[in-house]
Amino acid sequence: MSRENPEPTVRDVADWWATSVSRVEPNLIELRGRPVQDLIGSISFPGVIWLMLRGEPATPGQERLLEAALVSSVDHGPHAPSIAVARMAATCGVGLNNAVATGVNLLGDVHGGAGEQCMRMLSEIAAGAAAAEVVGRWRAHSKYLPGFGHRFHTVDPRRDPLLGLVERAVADGTVEGAHLRAARAVEELLADGRDRPVPINIDGCTAVVYGELGFPPPLARGLFVLSRSVGILAHAWEETGQGRRNKGPMPPSILPTPLGREQIPWPGEDPAPS
Amino acid sequence: MSRENPEPTVRDVADWWATSVSRVEPNLIELRGRPVQDLIGSISFPGVIWLMLRGEPATPGQERLLEAALVSSVDHGPHAPSIAVARMAATCGVGLNNAVATGVNLLGDVHGGAGEQCMRMLSEIAAGAAAAEVVGRWRAHSKYLPGFGHRFHTVDPRRDPLLGLVERAVADGTVEGAHLRAARAVEELLADGRDRPVPINIDGCTAVVYGELGFPPPLARGLFVLSRSVGILAHAWEETGQGRRNKGPMPPSILPTPLGREQIPWPGEDPAPS
Amino acid sequence: MSRENPEPTVRDVADWWATSVSRVEPNLIELRGRPVQDLIGSISFPGVIWLMLRGEPATPGQERLLEAALVSSVDHGPHAPSIAVARMAATCGVGLNNAVATGVNLLGDVHGGAGEQCMRMLSEIAAGAAAAEVVGRWRAHSKYLPGFGHRFHTVDPRRDPLLGLVERAVADGTVEGAHLRAARAVEELLADGRDRPVPINIDGCTAVVYGELGFPPPLARGLFVLSRSVGILAHAWEETGQGRRNKGPMPPSILPTPLGREQIPWPGEDPAPS
Amino acid sequence: MSRENPEPTVRDVADWWATSVSRVEPNLIELRGRPVQDLIGSISFPGVIWLMLRGEPATPGQERLLEAALVSSVDHGPHAPSIAVARMAATCGVGLNNAVATGVNLLGDVHGGAGEQCMRMLSEIAAGAAAAEVVGRWRAHSKYLPGFGHRFHTVDPRRDPLLGLVERAVADGTVEGAHLRAARAVEELLADGRDRPVPINIDGCTAVVYGELGFPPPLARGLFVLSRSVGILAHAWEETGQGRRNKGPMPPSILPTPLGREQIPWPGEDPAPS
Repeated sequence: MSRENPEPTVRDVADWWATSVSRVEPNLIELRGRPVQDLIGSISFPGVIWLMLRGEPATPGQERLLEAALVSSVDHGPHAPSIAVARMAATCGVGLNNAVATGVNLLGDVHGGAGEQCMRMLSEIAAGAAAAEVVGRWRAHSKYLPGFGHRFHTVDPRRDPLLGLVERAVADGTVEGAHLRAARAVEELLADGRDRPVPINIDGCTAVVYGELGFPPPLARGLFVLSRSVGILAHAWEETGQGRRNKGPMPPSILPTPLGREQIPWPGEDPAPS
Repeated sequence: MSRENPEPTVRDVADWWATSVSRVEPNLIELRGRPVQDLIGSISFPGVIWLMLRGEPATPGQERLLEAALVSSVDHGPHAPSIAVARMAATCGVGLNNAVATGVNLLGDVHGGAGEQCMRMLSEIAAGAAAAEVVGRWRAHSKYLPGFGHRFHTVDPRRDPLLGLVERAVADGTVEGAHLRAARAVEELLADGRDRPVPINIDGCTAVVYGELGFPPPLARGLFVLSRSVGILAHAWEETGQGRRNKGPMPPSILPTPLGREQIPWPGEDPAPS
Repeated sequence: MSRENPEPTVRDVADWWATSVSRVEPNLIELRGRPVQDLIGSISFPGVIWLMLRGEPATPGQERLLEAALVSSVDHGPHAPSIAVARMAATCGVGLNNAVATGVNLLGDVHGGAGEQCMRMLSEIAAGAAAAEVVGRWRAHSKYLPGFGHRFHTVDPRRDPLLGLVERAVADGTVEGAHLRAARAVEELLADGRDRPVPINIDGCTAVVYGELGFPPPLARGLFVLSRSVGILAHAWEETGQGRRNKGPMPPSILPTPLGREQIPWPGEDPAPS
Repeated sequence: MSRENPEPTVRDVADWWATSVSRVEPNLIELRGRPVQDLIGSISFPGVIWLMLRGEPATPGQERLLEAALVSSVDHGPHAPSIAVARMAATCGVGLNNAVATGVNLLGDVHGGAGEQCMRMLSEIAAGAAAAEVVGRWRAHSKYLPGFGHRFHTVDPRRDPLLGLVERAVADGTVEGAHLRAARAVEELLADGRDRPVPINIDGCTAVVYGELGFPPPLARGLFVLSRSVGILAHAWEETGQGRRNKGPMPPSILPTPLGREQIPWPGEDPAPS
């Protein structure tokens, strides 16, 4: 060791792993300074999500809004890549946790990250920028406007209930409403001169909720992860029960060769397509 | 294509991806047969977790118990490998979803899977087998009894509130109580002849809850994944804010070489330790 | 701190992370005791794989056999789940490393793990057990015999070249031949009374190679991971170049609704199917 | 289905999964148009990596250079997060493939992605831009210059052998040398006015090799993934043999509580720190 530096100590390691999220000592567990035994049975699951991410408890109104957003995005069917890969993983002989992790790993910038990008856009408008200018700038570098439009839905069935809840939260003073107004300004802008409007989608709606609640943009993706994990788990679990091995994207009957359809497994044959 | 087999059709592909978890069509999203717009704002987050996994809604009593279990296991500090790896991932330039997936990927047979194993053991006792015989059989092939004992806690602070809630649920008829009795039988058996009892731990307590609620054993792990994802996300997010790059297990000050401690980064230097 | 125990020191942490795989100090990197600068340009890539896993360098004959096995299993098309999920991940806005990790995560007990199981079976026969007895025991608890049979191939094109190389390695004394003889005994056993033989597949062939080379069974899976990572990377990279976003298992044209086919993306629409 | 659109067919699905990487039909496997049986035993492992990524075989000189780069970056000790998390995963009861995937998942923009960024910078200089201008521009938006400097090494022991091999490849006409000259120009620029030079590191050296060989920048990360997977596997495998359960970043002896050090596991106790 060099002379100039003090000897490193165990304290260095403890500091390296220091956290304000939780404290664990013998017979003591605190989450954000609150003993876990005081939380079990008295705080809701969305309430503990808020507490863990924000450090302070939510008000009942905040919790209600967060809960609605978490409920709204749990699933969008097995055609979404995150769900499909989790189902496929569940047939490959890995743990259920590995199947869920596989799905979550796909919620990247394009799949689950649109909410994060949409919140950045709405926050800029909410802070005073003109919607036309912000949207124009976004379009200059991207074909897509995050949080708006959907290839399935002309009106996303999740839009009205979610925005309706935000409206009521504005009315009762729970939230301020600037992100909601920003989202509507963008919708109007996109509808202009079109037969069919380009509706706000689920990424956009939850960006409104999380923005109103004061979450930073990256947590729009983080909260989407917690929500979609429910659907990922439910699908992986359903797949587990169907007994397939090595499920690929295409059923054996349409694999590119006739043999794929004709061949009957022999007893003792391992069909793993390595 | 062969003569004996009908031509494969698009239907084959649709069937291959068929699911009873959700239905998605233009302007329609159903979760377990329920339109999503009817759920947003009226069902709780634990309620939708139950619905997605079980196919039917929970009763209020079932939901309360599930919620308490989900709250109880969100975090156990950064010394747990699942949390530590998520914090490390957050410093490596990957998405927040990738950091969460990294943590969830570690909730395997040993880390988050003890609940699953414990539920199998308790279910056997609940179904009538003698505790001594089941525990004895388990010990014959393993050094550890899943769900019992903890290296930190002599009494896990999560034990009493969770088992207390199960007791009340037995009293009001929400659950039957056989898993709770099985857990107590094992605790008594383990206390016999010891100065200090070997307490049931969080994996065991949640196994009691999920067993009483009728979840199959693999979902003890699945539900633990949903719960612990909250702590994983909170820790990864906190780490993101600390600006470290390539965080390893040991702080630079105690890396095995003096240089690790002396060297001051030059402007323009990339400290990535590849 | 308690009296009975010495104060923990930084040494505890260093020991916790001690390894014999590599040594890294300022301006020094050793792999298994060999300075990295002596290896670069003089050892082959399979040679360094052997060195890292075994601790000692391979002979040229061992290296040749290992290399052939690594080459043989790099890819089996996008219908294999590991390849498919990596391609899907590549369209979701995550890093190329995350796409590869997603594919590798699926090489579990059923997908890439058959080689490990097959090696256990062959090792037992190689050690003197009767093939009929070992195969019979395996069949009693599983529908599949790991390493034998394939749903595509009646004769796997990788079989003859790989087993031929093992034969030559037996002839020149590089390996002993017991695993090769065991594999042939199983093939004969399975052919008995059938019109078409149940051929050894790639998992079985590489199990023969790795078994002859003295690798422990879990490394049959480990080496398969290194090999298949090449195909996973090549496919993920090809997909990256095709510009799809959120690629699911089914093309939009056969999604369950007509809207999926009719709808033309508006400018500004984000088609992400969250 | 709508009138305007043709009925979707099975062909749509096949096209959706079409690839030029490999072709798999009954008893036929082709990698980039070459029958796999012609490759086994005749192509090297780096050779098949090149073939799969580039579509054409490498020349012997190209293969030698690629092999040296792959060898050079297999490991940098357990203090690198990718290695550490794989070792931790190996103690959590998941498959060896899951442990490797966990490590690979961390090779993101900051950890393994510096080579990709460095190659972009060097390619710009190689194409004619002034080094000072490119470096200046990079510094304006980042504290770090990718591929240069190291917190351990004043001279990375991998630098001289790798750059020496590139020099020889320039001399014999295998590569052109523009990336090598660019890297040296940056080194000179960084040395100017400093006591100690800021040396090129392994990410920079391999960026030179891969750039000279004509790989696109994202494959600098892709090839690093293949190389570092070897170290990740070797470390995960070593850890597997040490019998730890739930290995966290800190040894139990320095966990924040005395109990962590005193407590002796009871028979039957599960030490899982959930």
